[in-house]
Amino acid sequence: MSITTTASNTTAPTQVLRGRNETYAFRRFGSGRGRPLVCLQHFTGTLDNWDPAVTDPLASEREVILFDNAGVGRSTGTVPHTIDGMAAHTLDFLDGLRLDTCDVLGFSLGGMVAQQMARNRPSIFRRMILVGTAPRGGEDIMHLEKPTLARHLGDPTLKGYAVLQKIFFAPTSSSQAAGGALIGRLAQRHEDLDTASGPDVAAAQIAAFREWEQFTGTRFGDLEGIHQPTLVVNGIHDEMIPVANSYRLAENLPNAVLLAYPDSGHGSLFQFHDSFTRHAAAFLASDTPFAPY
Amino acid sequence: MSITTTASNTTAPTQVLRGRNETYAFRRFGSGRGRPLVCLQHFTGTLDNWDPAVTDPLASEREVILFDNAGVGRSTGTVPHTIDGMAAHTLDFLDGLRLDTCDVLGFSLGGMVAQQMARNRPSIFRRMILVGTAPRGGEDIMHLEKPTLARHLGDPTLKGYAVLQKIFFAPTSSSQAAGGALIGRLAQRHEDLDTASGPDVAAAQIAAFREWEQFTGTRFGDLEGIHQPTLVVNGIHDEMIPVANSYRLAENLPNAVLLAYPDSGHGSLFQFHDSFTRHAAAFLASDTPFAPY
Repeated sequence: MSITTTASNTTAPTQVLRGRNETYAFRRFGSGRGRPLVCLQHFTGTLDNWDPAVTDPLASEREVILFDNAGVGRSTGTVPHTIDGMAAHTLDFLDGLRLDTCDVLGFSLGGMVAQQMARNRPSIFRRMILVGTAPRGGEDIMHLEKPTLARHLGDPTLKGYAVLQKIFFAPTSSSQAAGGALIGRLAQRHEDLDTASGPDVAAAQIAAFREWEQFTGTRFGDLEGIHQPTLVVNGIHDEMIPVANSYRLAENLPNAVLLAYPDSGHGSLFQFHDSFTRHAAAFLASDTPFAPY
Repeated sequence: MSITTTASNTTAPTQVLRGRNETYAFRRFGSGRGRPLVCLQHFTGTLDNWDPAVTDPLASEREVILFDNAGVGRSTGTVPHTIDGMAAHTLDFLDGLRLDTCDVLGFSLGGMVAQQMARNRPSIFRRMILVGTAPRGGEDIMHLEKPTLARHLGDPTLKGYAVLQKIFFAPTSSSQAAGGALIGRLAQRHEDLDTASGPDVAAAQIAAFREWEQFTGTRFGDLEGIHQPTLVVNGIHDEMIPVANSYRLAENLPNAVLLAYPDSGHGSLFQFHDSFTRHAAAFLASDTPFAPY
């Protein structure tokens, strides 16, 4: 396995790791005293969708590890139709890296995978950051057919990242400007680009969202068993995974701080990257067993 | 007006200021480059109910001003039956201090007074911290008759601060221990004590809560007009003013960050005083027009 020399997602080389099940694409950069931070990505996102304004400041104090789940980007295999299947691949990947314990930043879909991993193997995470995500049994998770999202996704005048700007950010000039800035930052990476997700990836991940909305037994009861100190973050006007899901996480996880940002949607961590990375770094720097930082 | 020499609520002398309407009791201590921070108190609370673990760290970077509204503690007059009446007294007090603009920490009842002041005179506050409070039209505000509160308030075996420990903190051993620690800190002040509130104070303040639950026009529409950067804080298991009220504040104030603490109730700022004062100091230190810090 090569040693990374560049602490930025703009320039870090893409590596591959052969796991038990698949060969996984990843990037690993940064150094410092902190635990490695594995970053689990959103719906259809690849390694190229991680904002360097989020990853790079965090990489100044620890290794940051970005990861394509099975069937995404240049990872082999097919995308599982369940969050549990994605959690199994992520554990396979971390086992391949010989990482027994790390911290996690799970964004959106990735936040669900992180929760499932914490249930399946509690020792895998020391501290968890869950952004724009939902518990099992959450509501209104990625219903792309609803009018507030469908009008952008079906707009033929919006191409590529222009759709992301509409659906990840609030419909204010300030939030839309932040979306434009994110797109500019993502475009700074020119070489060794990841493979963009196609409709098969999207369809399988949507199936996983639908399965994640189902629950048996006490709603949100699963969360009682997740004892990691957790930081829950959301934009207050998230249309993709509404903030009520973050409220339910904070109410039912036994050890979680909730931080919600104004004037922002699903991409609040990108819009307020200075603040988000400051909070994330302070949270991750804590060695106490308690979430408040 | 005397100059304060001791930067702690354990030892700061109580002063009085003659306003246009009443003579107000207050304490003022601390110094530094920050704007003065006026602290507006909770239901039946007096100057003696401000936790030195909250006020004193904040006083290391600014003047902290604690204030008894009319009819409370050693302030003259009668307790208004409306939040608007309390806001008028607070503005009278700040006018007497010749403070044109300051920061505010409004806790519970005090957070409602702060919101009303920001509506009545927008220039009065630069930045606002609203803890364990509710917007006009909020729900389940201080219904002391509900079983979860009444069983403690009506328990003849609980005396004095023992009731506060039950109703301000969550029913876990960790939160109850934090309540015990708060009581210990409050007991460190031995001299120049304030006058405790009696049933007349409580009755008038409860009447103000009932009036604050009423609204006309669009629910929470008033909040659109409050543009100050605001930090909204709550314990996730607050029985006195449930956290849903903080959700509505964060959703409807245009410029507010929400921070919610686990394993805590109404007194989350006391339970997590290290974290709270760190966040409050970072928020107050910001000079941007935006709430994220």
